[in-house]
Amino acid sequence: MDFIKIERDYLEVLTAWRRDFHQHPEPGWLEFRTSAIIADKLENWGYDVFVGKEIIKGISLGVPKQAQANVFYNKALESNIQAKWLEKMEAGKTGVIGILDTGIEGPTIAYRVDIDALPILESAADHHVPQKLGFRSQNEGFMHACGHDSHATIGLGLAEQLMKRKDQLCGKIVVIFQPAEEGVRGGSAIVSSPLLDNIDYLFALHIGTGIPKGTFVAGVDGFLATSKYDVTIKGVAAHSGINAEKGKNALLASAQAALALHSLPPHSEGMFRVNVGTLEAGNGRNIIPSLAKMQFEIRAENTDINAFYETKVEQIFKGIEAMYDVQVELEKVGYAINVPSDLQLAKVIKEVAKSQLSINEVIEYRDFKSGSEDATFIMKHVQQQGGLACYSIIGTDLAAGHHHEEFDIEEDDMLSALEIWLNVPFSIYEEMKVNE
Amino acid sequence: MDFIKIERDYLEVLTAWRRDFHQHPEPGWLEFRTSAIIADKLENWGYDVFVGKEIIKGISLGVPKQAQANVFYNKALESNIQAKWLEKMEAGKTGVIGILDTGIEGPTIAYRVDIDALPILESAADHHVPQKLGFRSQNEGFMHACGHDSHATIGLGLAEQLMKRKDQLCGKIVVIFQPAEEGVRGGSAIVSSPLLDNIDYLFALHIGTGIPKGTFVAGVDGFLATSKYDVTIKGVAAHSGINAEKGKNALLASAQAALALHSLPPHSEGMFRVNVGTLEAGNGRNIIPSLAKMQFEIRAENTDINAFYETKVEQIFKGIEAMYDVQVELEKVGYAINVPSDLQLAKVIKEVAKSQLSINEVIEYRDFKSGSEDATFIMKHVQQQGGLACYSIIGTDLAAGHHHEEFDIEEDDMLSALEIWLNVPFSIYEEMKVNE
Amino acid sequence: MDFIKIERDYLEVLTAWRRDFHQHPEPGWLEFRTSAIIADKLENWGYDVFVGKEIIKGISLGVPKQAQANVFYNKALESNIQAKWLEKMEAGKTGVIGILDTGIEGPTIAYRVDIDALPILESAADHHVPQKLGFRSQNEGFMHACGHDSHATIGLGLAEQLMKRKDQLCGKIVVIFQPAEEGVRGGSAIVSSPLLDNIDYLFALHIGTGIPKGTFVAGVDGFLATSKYDVTIKGVAAHSGINAEKGKNALLASAQAALALHSLPPHSEGMFRVNVGTLEAGNGRNIIPSLAKMQFEIRAENTDINAFYETKVEQIFKGIEAMYDVQVELEKVGYAINVPSDLQLAKVIKEVAKSQLSINEVIEYRDFKSGSEDATFIMKHVQQQGGLACYSIIGTDLAAGHHHEEFDIEEDDMLSALEIWLNVPFSIYEEMKVNE
Amino acid sequence: MDFIKIERDYLEVLTAWRRDFHQHPEPGWLEFRTSAIIADKLENWGYDVFVGKEIIKGISLGVPKQAQANVFYNKALESNIQAKWLEKMEAGKTGVIGILDTGIEGPTIAYRVDIDALPILESAADHHVPQKLGFRSQNEGFMHACGHDSHATIGLGLAEQLMKRKDQLCGKIVVIFQPAEEGVRGGSAIVSSPLLDNIDYLFALHIGTGIPKGTFVAGVDGFLATSKYDVTIKGVAAHSGINAEKGKNALLASAQAALALHSLPPHSEGMFRVNVGTLEAGNGRNIIPSLAKMQFEIRAENTDINAFYETKVEQIFKGIEAMYDVQVELEKVGYAINVPSDLQLAKVIKEVAKSQLSINEVIEYRDFKSGSEDATFIMKHVQQQGGLACYSIIGTDLAAGHHHEEFDIEEDDMLSALEIWLNVPFSIYEEMKVNE
Repeated sequence: MDFIKIERDYLEVLTAWRRDFHQHPEPGWLEFRTSAIIADKLENWGYDVFVGKEIIKGISLGVPKQAQANVFYNKALESNIQAKWLEKMEAGKTGVIGILDTGIEGPTIAYRVDIDALPILESAADHHVPQKLGFRSQNEGFMHACGHDSHATIGLGLAEQLMKRKDQLCGKIVVIFQPAEEGVRGGSAIVSSPLLDNIDYLFALHIGTGIPKGTFVAGVDGFLATSKYDVTIKGVAAHSGINAEKGKNALLASAQAALALHSLPPHSEGMFRVNVGTLEAGNGRNIIPSLAKMQFEIRAENTDINAFYETKVEQIFKGIEAMYDVQVELEKVGYAINVPSDLQLAKVIKEVAKSQLSINEVIEYRDFKSGSEDATFIMKHVQQQGGLACYSIIGTDLAAGHHHEEFDIEEDDMLSALEIWLNVPFSIYEEMKVNE
Repeated sequence: MDFIKIERDYLEVLTAWRRDFHQHPEPGWLEFRTSAIIADKLENWGYDVFVGKEIIKGISLGVPKQAQANVFYNKALESNIQAKWLEKMEAGKTGVIGILDTGIEGPTIAYRVDIDALPILESAADHHVPQKLGFRSQNEGFMHACGHDSHATIGLGLAEQLMKRKDQLCGKIVVIFQPAEEGVRGGSAIVSSPLLDNIDYLFALHIGTGIPKGTFVAGVDGFLATSKYDVTIKGVAAHSGINAEKGKNALLASAQAALALHSLPPHSEGMFRVNVGTLEAGNGRNIIPSLAKMQFEIRAENTDINAFYETKVEQIFKGIEAMYDVQVELEKVGYAINVPSDLQLAKVIKEVAKSQLSINEVIEYRDFKSGSEDATFIMKHVQQQGGLACYSIIGTDLAAGHHHEEFDIEEDDMLSALEIWLNVPFSIYEEMKVNE
Repeated sequence: MDFIKIERDYLEVLTAWRRDFHQHPEPGWLEFRTSAIIADKLENWGYDVFVGKEIIKGISLGVPKQAQANVFYNKALESNIQAKWLEKMEAGKTGVIGILDTGIEGPTIAYRVDIDALPILESAADHHVPQKLGFRSQNEGFMHACGHDSHATIGLGLAEQLMKRKDQLCGKIVVIFQPAEEGVRGGSAIVSSPLLDNIDYLFALHIGTGIPKGTFVAGVDGFLATSKYDVTIKGVAAHSGINAEKGKNALLASAQAALALHSLPPHSEGMFRVNVGTLEAGNGRNIIPSLAKMQFEIRAENTDINAFYETKVEQIFKGIEAMYDVQVELEKVGYAINVPSDLQLAKVIKEVAKSQLSINEVIEYRDFKSGSEDATFIMKHVQQQGGLACYSIIGTDLAAGHHHEEFDIEEDDMLSALEIWLNVPFSIYEEMKVNE
Repeated sequence: MDFIKIERDYLEVLTAWRRDFHQHPEPGWLEFRTSAIIADKLENWGYDVFVGKEIIKGISLGVPKQAQANVFYNKALESNIQAKWLEKMEAGKTGVIGILDTGIEGPTIAYRVDIDALPILESAADHHVPQKLGFRSQNEGFMHACGHDSHATIGLGLAEQLMKRKDQLCGKIVVIFQPAEEGVRGGSAIVSSPLLDNIDYLFALHIGTGIPKGTFVAGVDGFLATSKYDVTIKGVAAHSGINAEKGKNALLASAQAALALHSLPPHSEGMFRVNVGTLEAGNGRNIIPSLAKMQFEIRAENTDINAFYETKVEQIFKGIEAMYDVQVELEKVGYAINVPSDLQLAKVIKEVAKSQLSINEVIEYRDFKSGSEDATFIMKHVQQQGGLACYSIIGTDLAAGHHHEEFDIEEDDMLSALEIWLNVPFSIYEEMKVNE
């Protein structure tokens, strides 16, 4: 089978989309404008489009405060987008799924991209390309510093290109624009959507992550399972001089909790780590602190180990509550599991990638034990229903590391990735024929 | 009224008794021999005698292990004492109450002394008088290092002398030889005895405590309320290398508990302090510690404050249990409350003491905020039933401080104390007449 | 001697001054406008006036950040005040001393008031008098919530009234408008001024503090010695997943420090307490926290005990520094000592106060063991040079407690206090005559 | 080359030796009797023998207290052994090296076995073979529960068998009976002996370790680097009620140290773990604890990571010393490094083992990341001088796990191991010829 190439001019289309997303970054669960733009295009191209409340059926973890939600909702309202999309959304209910049903018997092939930005102030340095070329973030304090603007763009381009080749397709194509990947919040919430049932082949992808331009990693394993928590400890204030005994000291409670968390034992079956990243307690030098807030995360080599420590975490805070007679709210604000890519599917996409001229090295399978991903929920769902799932990485040369204020990608790699994904269905059809 | 003097020779009798007690020290709740000897003499003198199980009706705190109990029980068995007394006793049920009922209308006057020794190895230094004169402890590792041998002696002498003057007495005389004062264990257990009901006047006394020879403190206030705890934390052992996660770490649990106890807040209504005195945990360098034991105490200016912290202590260990998924046994092994002496009664004994020639200074009333006493339970019981109670101190020159391996008293001060107590009933009778 | 009364109309003058101060509250070390207004008036009345850099010779503790200083400095610049006063000031160098030297032999009598406000947002409730009458704070977030506006006013009124009676005075009058009492920062800095040498009689005063209207406390003892600290712990950030071992964890360091501070032992010679009031650490969930900040204070029954714990505090942080390989900056931002009022001088002012008709109860001497005061530095300095010092309290009915957003005093009590202080020199002169 | 078999009867000789060692277990650094018996036999067979002080040239870690040393020394004295061997030994200076110098040019081939027992009370259960057959430990509380009795036996048998074949040998044979492997104390002390220089081939071996009977692991990697510490924290005692502030609390110091140790971060380059195994502090409920003792260990995937945490450990205790104003003695009582077996040499012994009929499975190379070994010091020394080293495991069916009170091996596996080791030199000679 010949490798389908897209005309080179299409990169300009992609670039325009990506820069627009880049200029209007929206944090997880508040991708109102982003979702609306995507939905609009998909509808125009002929997709069945499902948005926000129609697709987020599970519990949305780590939804931002309403005040912040309002800011982004209002920005979206003021943009030139259709109200009908906004009406389908609210904080914690964003994202888009587009479905192309050919009506012809055939496999359901799904692609998942993520679309959210980060609460990072983008660099205004002259050498920072978005600044230089005038597409720096217009939402001060927020930035597409992890490449999800390009992911959304690849998803859109793929959707358009596949629709153009509708006649050659069979079965169904599902393009998932998942919200709130940062903090691993959206995956577990979107996976309950019935639209994600009965997928035969699922592809997910990340750009960058340390992989250089020209390299493609077909299948990735080893994302870490993780749970992220926000804790609020509510004690009782008292004047430390006048009636200290009436206080219930949330600061000491949090100090003991931090030590208990960091002294959890290692696990013999795989890596575990914990980090209490932030702690804020008290509001006056001579007042027994009545409030403490902590943000922490656990990560583990697999979902079972992670679950083991989730139980330990709950025990610690149940204990802290009793010890200091305080109220503890332990909120899980992010969660991801560990799921390997299917090697069988990795081999398929590997072969496709080899035909992509811009790719000079294809790695079939790689362990990747430092980050987490919530695409894993959808991958696992697909696998449990008998399908296959594969997470790939398209290399690019980064201006600065992920989550850095000067993060930037090379835009032509979007087209490379898009072409690989565009060819995959045809490889699958072919292989299915062979196997018949 | 004339001050009754006892013939000087009687000091030899007292000295012989005291040295016998000193040679055979028995720890709290195991005063088998001591109790039997006392009971025997009281019976011979004509007292109604009640022993061990007949008088200990409350919960006995901090009863020693059975193995140790057997050691002292067997020693007592082997002594030349009557079996009938031993049969009335068991570990946690010791002590004697002797009652002289004159049959004549009159007040019930009670005296309370304590009789137990300490787990201290007595000095064998040549200059240590008990060693020099050959009456050092024969129970290695145990010692009368707080003067309770002299207290028991004073109580005995008083009983004999009062009986000799039975014709001059009216009402009832109750002499209480309370067990297990060390660790404040016996007071709360003996107070439930009906024999201690309807006491009109209660006297208790300590020798030494820093008061010099020749000084008598008539009334003492300010004993600290206290609760003493033994804690056992049971976790689960695991090999720290092979399966650390299976362990439940009792050592870390105890470390956090110690820090939590020591960081309890002060109390605005009075002094509070805590001390974790001992901690033992773990039994192998590479084993997750499955057992930890702690001994600690709280003390407070009064019973209410003490109770406040008892609740805090319980909360801490309930929390520790949850945090580390361990089992915590929090045993209260000692308890004393805070009760002031009645000033009115202190004045009576003060006047008596002034007539004692060996006393050159009488202090009417003194705060004593460093130690605790479980005579307070009996004092409070008397006060609640409308009686009066007074705790006194007879000064002596100590060879070394209380609980020191070279502790020793001057024996003639026993006679001084005895004479003061002997005269008290007559003062009371006189005063009652005056008040009629 | 007759008690000198001020014409009742003068209360309107005082009230106008107080309300002006109340509307323009300035936090400690930034009392630029307040100091300038005071200096201006004193100069007009004929006082020798010393301001800011001329009087702050010691180390200024807890000076606010420059950015905040600029805000208040600029506000002052924009007011209608003379530039010459502002030139004498900078952040950490504020306050005024006015001296009236009669040239006639006689005692030096000094009065000390404080002038700073608090970082508290004043209530805008309709029932809050400053709001109702239109003199609520114009510096949002700052408020005279401890009555120092009235103290400054009393000091000013006293200065004017004494000058009016200059002919009747002898010796010297020194009126000290001390900056930065809140957080006990100014006292130790101003006391090194040579202008405060050779004072024979020193008076200081507080309004309110729980004492009801109509009551005057002549002499106060028992202010707590205190030291207040800001701590910065600087570690090294690292990604908790990628290279945790490269981090130096400031959050855990601060947790152990908080526990160590709160588990400091009690002191046998007097009260001690500690409070870690605030703790902030870390800035990302998966970043090893590289920065922690704590605010805490110790208080003790006297200066020696406080010094004992200052050493302990330094040891703890020296230890934390080594344990976590972090850098610790332990800054003492407030300090006060414990000094008793001279009973002899309290008796003088007591007699004066008895003649004040608005006062119906005068308490000669009272222990006051819950707060701290840095007037104590000046009191001690005076006492060390052979003078006498006395701290008084003028009762008032408060709308709400000190440091509360609805704190308010009754303004006529300023006049009562002023009259008492105005009469004091004459009592002293008389007494000196008697003693000759 | 033919595999040399030893006559089956020789197993009886081995069994007798092993049971003798088993009956007389001696803990590390006190192997007086064991060493003397070995030395005696080696001398009789014609070996050059070096004992105790002649071979222990480095620092002996974790030497037992003198009192315990005396017990074992005296036991040895009372045995029927030659005094001349005992004279060469003292606590911390035990073990034997036997050298067979053929005088003919050839390689130096060394074997290292360990000889010490454990402080474990051996089971007296009827089903426990040593009990049933009458060779249970006669040193109550000590037991060969790790198979070093069989290691010593294999070493002895090998020495005798090699000497019998002296004519077929060339170069030198060195048999090292290393003391104090338990707690990894002896390896770093014996390695400085010049007798261990210029070894060309070094073999070490363990029996059991979970490898089943019939399996032989030729080369082992992955022993964990480890450091073992005993810590003594000396504070100052004080009565918690009378003068708590005079105390320096060793118990709280140890609690904080335990939490700090257990909250050390993971390492990105390999496994790390820590365990505080024991903690003992304080000796009276109302005494500020003046003494605390801890035993702990760190283990790491390699020597560098271990060294990283050694520095952290030192920092923690330097900090604890300052924080609590206590004296800390941090004694390193055990130490082992991580060294891989040489694959080249593992291949040689693998081929030999294949010819051993009792072995049905030979594993060439295995990672073994749960324990530590101080043979690694000798292995590294050999490798640094250009030699090759290989650590093997001979499987056996254990009655119970290592360090268990019912641990027991199957004795015929000693003969299997011995035969493999006996054949190794000849393989080496052959291979050297081939390579010439």
